[in-house]
Amino acid sequence: MTLVAIKYTRGKLEILDQLLLPTQSEYIPVKNSGDGWNVIKKMQVRGAPAIAIVGCLSLAVEVAEDREHSTVGDLAHFICDRLHHLVTARPTAVNMAEASKRLTTLMKDMAAESGQRVDTLRERFMKECEDMLEKDIAVNKNIGKYGADHILAQCKNKPVKVLTHCNTGSLATAGYGTALGVVRALHEREKISHAYCTETRPYNQGSRLTAYELVHEKIPATLICDSMAAILMDQQDISAVVVGADRVVANGDTANKIGTYQLAIAAKHHNVPFYVACPSTTFDPNLTSGKDIEIEERPSGEMTSVKGIRVAAHGINCWNPAFDITPASLITGGIITEFGVFSPADLKAQLADCLKTDN
Amino acid sequence: MTLVAIKYTRGKLEILDQLLLPTQSEYIPVKNSGDGWNVIKKMQVRGAPAIAIVGCLSLAVEVAEDREHSTVGDLAHFICDRLHHLVTARPTAVNMAEASKRLTTLMKDMAAESGQRVDTLRERFMKECEDMLEKDIAVNKNIGKYGADHILAQCKNKPVKVLTHCNTGSLATAGYGTALGVVRALHEREKISHAYCTETRPYNQGSRLTAYELVHEKIPATLICDSMAAILMDQQDISAVVVGADRVVANGDTANKIGTYQLAIAAKHHNVPFYVACPSTTFDPNLTSGKDIEIEERPSGEMTSVKGIRVAAHGINCWNPAFDITPASLITGGIITEFGVFSPADLKAQLADCLKTDN
Repeated sequence: MTLVAIKYTRGKLEILDQLLLPTQSEYIPVKNSGDGWNVIKKMQVRGAPAIAIVGCLSLAVEVAEDREHSTVGDLAHFICDRLHHLVTARPTAVNMAEASKRLTTLMKDMAAESGQRVDTLRERFMKECEDMLEKDIAVNKNIGKYGADHILAQCKNKPVKVLTHCNTGSLATAGYGTALGVVRALHEREKISHAYCTETRPYNQGSRLTAYELVHEKIPATLICDSMAAILMDQQDISAVVVGADRVVANGDTANKIGTYQLAIAAKHHNVPFYVACPSTTFDPNLTSGKDIEIEERPSGEMTSVKGIRVAAHGINCWNPAFDITPASLITGGIITEFGVFSPADLKAQLADCLKTDN
Repeated sequence: MTLVAIKYTRGKLEILDQLLLPTQSEYIPVKNSGDGWNVIKKMQVRGAPAIAIVGCLSLAVEVAEDREHSTVGDLAHFICDRLHHLVTARPTAVNMAEASKRLTTLMKDMAAESGQRVDTLRERFMKECEDMLEKDIAVNKNIGKYGADHILAQCKNKPVKVLTHCNTGSLATAGYGTALGVVRALHEREKISHAYCTETRPYNQGSRLTAYELVHEKIPATLICDSMAAILMDQQDISAVVVGADRVVANGDTANKIGTYQLAIAAKHHNVPFYVACPSTTFDPNLTSGKDIEIEERPSGEMTSVKGIRVAAHGINCWNPAFDITPASLITGGIITEFGVFSPADLKAQLADCLKTDN
């Protein structure tokens, strides 16, 4: 059974409490938009797409039961008000704000139509929220499919050993995952001989979350320290490195979790194909090169302490960039999207074509 | 004031308790060979050379006060008996066993001489132990001097930025250090513009011990995660990477703390000179290449928990090699010894020459 971090059926939503991971796996019910606001605020759910989806679905659950707002105007007003409130839980994540804006416009437009029925409005709102969940998973499954196809084609369809970094799985997306989705797809085809994940210092997304997902899926897997990737490539016949992306710019340069650049250099040294897996929405054609991407620096406490326990010497200065830039030239395998696998140099033109066809 | 982990004057020995570092800096008195045995056993002192030196000096302190053994035969017998006992504290470390063997032979030979005086024997034993401490520091200071000379010559004598890995300082040697000794020597000449140290997962020797030494010495320094070395080299003008060595073999291939190989690849990619700093005793001409070096694998608990707190997901398999091999071709700066800086290819011949002259 694939790990499901967001469990939804119409009228019912539960999420896996990420604050308790990896030591406890507990689902908590999200019964209304008030609960939705709380789980986002407390970071029981994380990751920009997941936040938007859980926020909207929490309201969809509330609306499913609601019979208080008996006119179209009342219900539309209630929905818009709650969407606006949900945005405030973590105002910096853009996805919830965008979803709120889009759905608010839709509700207002529908409410303005003459002869509109309250049940139609309710149904449409729920459907829109449910589509967000389904679409994100469908995109990830396509990424998994194309990535697995491409890697297996390079390896003459033999079982492969894949190294991944950070967490890009069910816990970071609506489900399935991007880079870890590729690993899942390979596993479904019984073509993973072994998966390796890095700890991903300093926040340990690999040892906490990716390791948790790999154990849950019963994928044969091993955790390594970030510094062990090179000796791993030297000693094991690694078929591919697959990582996610936070942003891919016009020339194919890619921003991703700190350590990605170093992995790409080690992969190049060992002639191991290096792949970036991400939805097409990660592509930002407005920036021309990786040099234009601003890198967030995080507090030193992430490095000096673990769960409140001091590890590093007192008084030491820390440098804690959260991301680094991998130049297109090191992305030797390709960029895996829901439309196919493209070389970084071709990505801009190829995506423009695909999006034209898709619309 | 340079950090002194082993404080010794004749009749008095104190060591910095490494079990309390980096949160507490406490010296504990070592009054006799019983105390010496205990601090080695409990790992309050660590590192093969440091163990041998502290073991022998603990007995030197005891012998300095001893008037119980009034004949040459009695004193020699007592010393040999205690040396033998000290070896048992951590029997796998070869240095204490070698020191015990050498000093036992010396004491027996002296005791066998006719007309030998008990004061002469006592004096000679203390002097031999004190020489071990002094010689190790002198070797390290020469490593520091030659390393600093070489790096500064490459950089036209301008202040430099140096990255190091693991702990190779006063806490790992009799004092001063090897790779960190080079950083110290540069600092003494006011030629360090910045020192960077890696966390050195999974045992955190960098964040715990090297960071502690750098803060203590007031060397301008910054801690980074192991995965950040590549972006550091990309963004900062790093003059050199300097690391220690656990073993250097005939062709110049070098075994050192896990992560060294990956650093060397990143350094090569960025054209940053990569140096290995170690005493000539680290050279092992009996092995022809790095492939012949056996790599110790350590327990997974070092990776999955920090100070007894579980970090990684339960059930995940770990790979925890303690060392990796850096091929001679990646040691682009050279190998820094107490006799000078040599290219890995020339090391065997050069050391043979130096040792001939030295003896």
